[in-house]
Amino acid sequence: MLETTIEDIKDIQIPKVEDLRGNLAIVEGDSIPFEMKRVYYLYDVPSSAYRGGHAHRSLEQVMIALSGSFDVIFDDGKQKKTITLNKPDRGILIPPGIWREMVNFSSGAVCMVIASEVYDEEDYIRAYSEFQSLKNT
Amino acid sequence: MLETTIEDIKDIQIPKVEDLRGNLAIVEGDSIPFEMKRVYYLYDVPSSAYRGGHAHRSLEQVMIALSGSFDVIFDDGKQKKTITLNKPDRGILIPPGIWREMVNFSSGAVCMVIASEVYDEEDYIRAYSEFQSLKNT
Repeated sequence: MLETTIEDIKDIQIPKVEDLRGNLAIVEGDSIPFEMKRVYYLYDVPSSAYRGGHAHRSLEQVMIALSGSFDVIFDDGKQKKTITLNKPDRGILIPPGIWREMVNFSSGAVCMVIASEVYDEEDYIRAYSEFQSLKNT
Repeated sequence: MLETTIEDIKDIQIPKVEDLRGNLAIVEGDSIPFEMKRVYYLYDVPSSAYRGGHAHRSLEQVMIALSGSFDVIFDDGKQKKTITLNKPDRGILIPPGIWREMVNFSSGAVCMVIASEVYDEEDYIRAYSEFQSLKNT
């Protein structure tokens, strides 16, 4: 799975029901390609903050901006790609083996992530040098 | 399960990691009393809107205000209770057999719900008169 590249990062249109009384977006079953085991969300992020700075060995994730906006810099060891997330019905599927950094948080931004497994520190690659050697770059 | 009362509505403290770079709240494993099958979220809700107005036959849910605030009026057929949700680390466990209405949305409010089952229209009680007769009130 560490052979993944930024081409493997996919956009997911989250199904939604639009209504004058507000919009309802739903994640279940086939709308993401794995069974959800964990949901986590970042909030109260200062606009100058930098988050992320790691990759995963096997975890798959879908990241969604539920409120506000932020930029995610994806890096496969060879190429980088920046995506601005600012729509609650747009999910980004992040495969394992992709380094990610999150920057440029707007006031009130909320970043939700739905993950394929529960927390496992062993799954994290936290040193960029280790990431580079695993990606053979 | 339709013998539930508003006393069965429980507060859940969502585990979080506080950091100067923002707060991270995590829902997984034992932090909620069921396996998550569906995540949905309401956003772009006009401040005058009224949402909800239904109960479930067997679905369990945890509701969280991920951004902004709103009020939830819970009703077990005999008693009502209003809870203001405005903290991303506070979840409300809603058992089956509880009528709920959501009102008084702040600008930018996001209401996330984690549910124990995928969508099933048969599980909804959408008429208050049917709810009352099921609750023997």
